Amino acid sequence: MRVDIAKGILEKNDTLAEENRALFAANDVFVVDLMASPGAGKTSTILATIAALRNRYSIGVIEGDIASRVDAEKIASHGVPAVQINTGGACHLESDMIRRAVDTLDLAALDLLIIENVGNLVCPTDFDLGEHAKVMILSVPEGHDKPRKYPGIFQVAEAVILNKYDTMGVFDFDEDEFREDVRRLNLHAPVFPISARTGDGVEAWAEWLVSRIEDEKGKRA
Amino acid sequence: MRVDIAKGILEKNDTLAEENRALFAANDVFVVDLMASPGAGKTSTILATIAALRNRYSIGVIEGDIASRVDAEKIASHGVPAVQINTGGACHLESDMIRRAVDTLDLAALDLLIIENVGNLVCPTDFDLGEHAKVMILSVPEGHDKPRKYPGIFQVAEAVILNKYDTMGVFDFDEDEFREDVRRLNLHAPVFPISARTGDGVEAWAEWLVSRIEDEKGKRA
Repeated sequence: MRVDIAKGILEKNDTLAEENRALFAANDVFVVDLMASPGAGKTSTILATIAALRNRYSIGVIEGDIASRVDAEKIASHGVPAVQINTGGACHLESDMIRRAVDTLDLAALDLLIIENVGNLVCPTDFDLGEHAKVMILSVPEGHDKPRKYPGIFQVAEAVILNKYDTMGVFDFDEDEFREDVRRLNLHAPVFPISARTGDGVEAWAEWLVSRIEDEKGKRA
Repeated sequence: MRVDIAKGILEKNDTLAEENRALFAANDVFVVDLMASPGAGKTSTILATIAALRNRYSIGVIEGDIASRVDAEKIASHGVPAVQINTGGACHLESDMIRRAVDTLDLAALDLLIIENVGNLVCPTDFDLGEHAKVMILSVPEGHDKPRKYPGIFQVAEAVILNKYDTMGVFDFDEDEFREDVRRLNLHAPVFPISARTGDGVEAWAEWLVSRIEDEKGKRA
């Protein structure tokens, strides 16, 4: 992506991201930007996270996709406010798209806003949306060599979720090598093995998210 | 991607793609551009294709990745000439990168050149590399809803490989819905269920590729 982005596009994006950040702070909403490959289980992970945290927080979701309303409908069917962004051809979300989506949500009523970015391990990396944390998901079937091939996304992520962990026996995934490669790129990001489908491991990830949300509240208090 | 691409970049790319095409024709090489998500099994599919066709054709490979030489080393270890392109941050290959990579290969000695694009369902769609056919791989763990979410790549593909078919029992993949959605986007592309790991189904895909190669030869004869 980087070679294609005109400097002006990034600057404009960053300016609007700052406005988003101010809007989120004014409404006391914590915002997560969830990034992953197509089919890594972003929507399932969001649903599992909602199940874990909906008694504690009021949650909203923004769904980013090239096309279709599949994901927003899936989320909305669980009684959670969800807005679908269709990017047309764009391989990532930008801060102005988030702003337009946010304008359709009752932001003041939310504690946590989860943004599902377009399925892509490259483009979303460079775009600040005004979020508090970028988090990425890798799924076991994608293979343990992804940090070597897509280092940028592992560098910007504050936490790494390793999804479809229940299929570990089916694929040739070297978890030690994966963790070493993640650590080489990112000193601090915790790695959370989960199965969004079975719910295994979701608690540890949800606890991390709660502590991030409460930290942020503490800063504002 | 589309919204970010300056018209000039695409025009420059297309001009160089035409030069590549002429170069490939002059050397009687058939060129495939293989596109897929990260971890869909592009390299494994290339290895399985090489195993099926190496007695018939002289094959070379260009590997595209953001970073690392993992894939080119894997291919080269099978005694097949392989060039690695590292795009830095770019989410797709462009025709000038192909030209530079091709200059390091003995093109006259090859019948078939397989290009593995960067793992991405969006960006590679718009970039002509001078190839004869764009082919895409979807892997079963990614889910059957991908044609709805990433229609562009299914539209430009001449053939669709459905990889990791041996894991069909592990995932909730609706093959009928998938095939219907592919057909709605693309009237002609055959769908080849394969397991690059076990070799199942590779023969049908390889036969299709042979017929495309021989067709192209017939046109030039």
